[in-house]
Amino acid sequence: MFLSLASVISLVAVIIPAAHCGKVLVFPHDGSHWVNMRVLVEELHSRGHTVTVIRPADSWYISDTSPHYNAVTVDMDGGADEDFFRRFVSEVIRIRRSKGSAWTRFALDMELKDKFFELHKKICEMVIHLFENKDLMNSIQDAKYDVVLTDPANGGGVMLAHYLRLPLVFNARWTVHGEAHFAIAPSPLSYVPLPPSELSDKMTFFERVKNIVFYTMRMHLYKQIVGPHYSALASRYFGPDVDYFSLFQAADMWLMRVDFVFEFPRPTMPNVVYMGGFQCKPAKPLPEHLEEFVQSSGEHGVIIMSLGTLIGELPHDLADEIAAAFAKLPQKVIWRYKGERPATLGNNTLLVDWMPQNDLLGHPHMKLFVSHGGTNGIYEAIYHGVPIVGIPIVFDQADNLSRLRAKGVAKVMDISELDSKTFQDAIQDVLNEPSYRLNMQRLSRLHRDQPMKPLDTALFWIEFVMRHKGAAHLRTESYRLPWYSYHSVDVVLFLVGAVLLVLFTFFFVIRCLCTKMCRSKVKRD
Amino acid sequence: MFLSLASVISLVAVIIPAAHCGKVLVFPHDGSHWVNMRVLVEELHSRGHTVTVIRPADSWYISDTSPHYNAVTVDMDGGADEDFFRRFVSEVIRIRRSKGSAWTRFALDMELKDKFFELHKKICEMVIHLFENKDLMNSIQDAKYDVVLTDPANGGGVMLAHYLRLPLVFNARWTVHGEAHFAIAPSPLSYVPLPPSELSDKMTFFERVKNIVFYTMRMHLYKQIVGPHYSALASRYFGPDVDYFSLFQAADMWLMRVDFVFEFPRPTMPNVVYMGGFQCKPAKPLPEHLEEFVQSSGEHGVIIMSLGTLIGELPHDLADEIAAAFAKLPQKVIWRYKGERPATLGNNTLLVDWMPQNDLLGHPHMKLFVSHGGTNGIYEAIYHGVPIVGIPIVFDQADNLSRLRAKGVAKVMDISELDSKTFQDAIQDVLNEPSYRLNMQRLSRLHRDQPMKPLDTALFWIEFVMRHKGAAHLRTESYRLPWYSYHSVDVVLFLVGAVLLVLFTFFFVIRCLCTKMCRSKVKRD
Repeated sequence: MFLSLASVISLVAVIIPAAHCGKVLVFPHDGSHWVNMRVLVEELHSRGHTVTVIRPADSWYISDTSPHYNAVTVDMDGGADEDFFRRFVSEVIRIRRSKGSAWTRFALDMELKDKFFELHKKICEMVIHLFENKDLMNSIQDAKYDVVLTDPANGGGVMLAHYLRLPLVFNARWTVHGEAHFAIAPSPLSYVPLPPSELSDKMTFFERVKNIVFYTMRMHLYKQIVGPHYSALASRYFGPDVDYFSLFQAADMWLMRVDFVFEFPRPTMPNVVYMGGFQCKPAKPLPEHLEEFVQSSGEHGVIIMSLGTLIGELPHDLADEIAAAFAKLPQKVIWRYKGERPATLGNNTLLVDWMPQNDLLGHPHMKLFVSHGGTNGIYEAIYHGVPIVGIPIVFDQADNLSRLRAKGVAKVMDISELDSKTFQDAIQDVLNEPSYRLNMQRLSRLHRDQPMKPLDTALFWIEFVMRHKGAAHLRTESYRLPWYSYHSVDVVLFLVGAVLLVLFTFFFVIRCLCTKMCRSKVKRD
Repeated sequence: MFLSLASVISLVAVIIPAAHCGKVLVFPHDGSHWVNMRVLVEELHSRGHTVTVIRPADSWYISDTSPHYNAVTVDMDGGADEDFFRRFVSEVIRIRRSKGSAWTRFALDMELKDKFFELHKKICEMVIHLFENKDLMNSIQDAKYDVVLTDPANGGGVMLAHYLRLPLVFNARWTVHGEAHFAIAPSPLSYVPLPPSELSDKMTFFERVKNIVFYTMRMHLYKQIVGPHYSALASRYFGPDVDYFSLFQAADMWLMRVDFVFEFPRPTMPNVVYMGGFQCKPAKPLPEHLEEFVQSSGEHGVIIMSLGTLIGELPHDLADEIAAAFAKLPQKVIWRYKGERPATLGNNTLLVDWMPQNDLLGHPHMKLFVSHGGTNGIYEAIYHGVPIVGIPIVFDQADNLSRLRAKGVAKVMDISELDSKTFQDAIQDVLNEPSYRLNMQRLSRLHRDQPMKPLDTALFWIEFVMRHKGAAHLRTESYRLPWYSYHSVDVVLFLVGAVLLVLFTFFFVIRCLCTKMCRSKVKRD
């Protein structure tokens, strides 16, 4: 047996510390990020902790009433403008389908950049509003929280934790500056690809050039656009010597929404804990009408398609192409689609407003998942071992899918090339070539074979930080070094200088001796 | 509660995979390293796995009969010469006590270097002897092992795993090249101190210079002294293109005998698992005579002293100084000492040939541990929360103790300065200043508060590698890059070149234009 009963009992004895109910202050990031944070909030609540969530008055996803947390609503606009993002995605699809000019795409990217600029500005205003509300801050201070839990996609929680002098735990994949590992782990750009480059961990020379150029641009973008808001905020409340980026790097614990069955292996740090797939769980039975529909697929099985909450509709022509491809398949198809019913829709395809995605992915008849490449859906597909046809549209979707393609578990389509023929071919390739399913099932086995469930791991470390008031022993303070010291540039220059000095002195002495000898020789002559 | 009963049950369900008894081939490193490996071997055996251990005929520590493993004895001298190392340690003490000249010390270091050279040469000869014994190799191949478990302090196991095409798991702290992290994790020398520098993770400029100089020398030493044996072996059996260092870096799993309550936090990799303190366990009751002696100490409590298995005796004068210091203390002392009874020995001091160190450290009367700084003893002291007075002598002992000093849990003595006065002062400092004990108890709490016991973690990952025939998804292949690509030197040169070319072209065009304009002006004039 891999674990004897005795060791299981001793293990259980180790993992249940003395009962202790803590108080957790959550500063989330709005939009789909909240879907992840909510999983942690609900689990914290179910284990008896008290959770308070800070939200802007106009929050897109974060409700002001919940059985799982108390909401503190800051009477401000949080900047996460749902309408803008929906419109933006539609525009991206339109431009890519119409093969719009580079200029059109660039203009759209600039609009997105401005939106993020505005979003972070509003978050900083929200933090100022919070800090200036003395009554509210006093009540927060009096509540004696144990830890601040935040999503580092914005810097609000970092500020709040430092203001309240509380330990800081990140629920992280992206930071304000980019992929979260880059903020603390040494990440050689020769094999660690930077999103959104869509590169893998095995790069050609010119791909490595691209990766470094992307990195340089990203850091520049951050410094120009997002950094100043937070720097000004840090300076205003904590003094001119406090560097915002250092506050970030001083977090006690990084709960990373990453698992290496999905992400390329790369350097990490002792205070990074991996909880990729923490939201995954076994499938529950389907509602009766869906179960009937799924069962009617017989041996051919079922395909589901969802492009995420942001993309409920598609341009008519595109929806028609997709529906026409589905109509030609022997499988049954469940498609989450809120737009008008496509003219080409087949009898085998069921349109739904919403579907129990995890329960469907875990159904034994499930054959294939057509996905935009959102992280949550991908982890559910990995958990249940279902191969993917990906249609990436914006943000990290193409990078997510490029990882799955590299592992041989997904076929990725370019939306600008998508028609009923190419789409049908892609689906049939993945259905008929067994390697896609076998590889995905292997990833599933690896993903499920962990010492603890990812959600339990995450909770253990949040509670660890509460019990010990931080986790300083797992965190380097290398971020306190100036860059030239961190990279030993000063030491190398010093050593090169020392060697040159020794050589110079040596040659100078030799030269003097030679000159002297020559002179005395001349004299003697 | 931190973990509800339901989640404990689900957790237990996750951590017990289907029963599977595996076959483990162990290539250990002789001497005190075997003490660690034996813990894993015994645990593997107790969980139903079959373990085979490869040993040289003259092994120092590794017995040829055991209820826990089958021994395969290679009819060769393994090079781990017990007499040499005992003599070496005595010489080190003598030279340091007599404040011997730098030359004497250097000569001794060269003798040690030669010994290691010889040791690795003999290990390579042992591997050749093994590979050339076709009957033995056939029987090993027929046995169909699941994994090779080895200590990377020598390279024999690496060769064997590659020869048999088996997954490779390291039980690691040191590799042939030095501290094990340096072999795979990016380790900025600005804050990652290289043993035996005795530096911490917070270095001054000149300490950083020292660290880089040490690193350069160490790599040079490795390449000159140890590398060639293994490179020749790799070339002979696997072809001239096979780089020995790459075989090393391709290991599936590194079980690191490290815990960050002890080690400075530093970068790591996804296939590094920390099991520092895996040998620690609760104290068992003491034998009756020891329990009586300990109880007789009353409120003053007990001190134990042990300088490890290598150092059973000390020069008379030194033993007298130590005994005299002990005699003046109100505590009772248990001293593992095999030499002649010191003339100054007090009634409060009990000399023993051997002691149940872990059981004593876990006794409620325990006040202080006088230790040479061996890793096993240090982890036992951390586990039980007992502060330390350290007397480092050779190898990694001073570096181990410098880590404890940095955490405020140990006072470290220089053996050349040790007399009854300084020794008594050090002991009384640690006994009377509460911070030493409180800090050590804090480390103990942090060390014990882990999701799983370190030994269970180690076993989980060995069994993981057996179940999945490796752990390739956790391992980077960055070691396949040449150094200039790994560090992006080629890309940076290319980009600098490209920028210079653009600038040059720009200025050239400007210059041409200027010249042309000037000429036409002259013409017009």
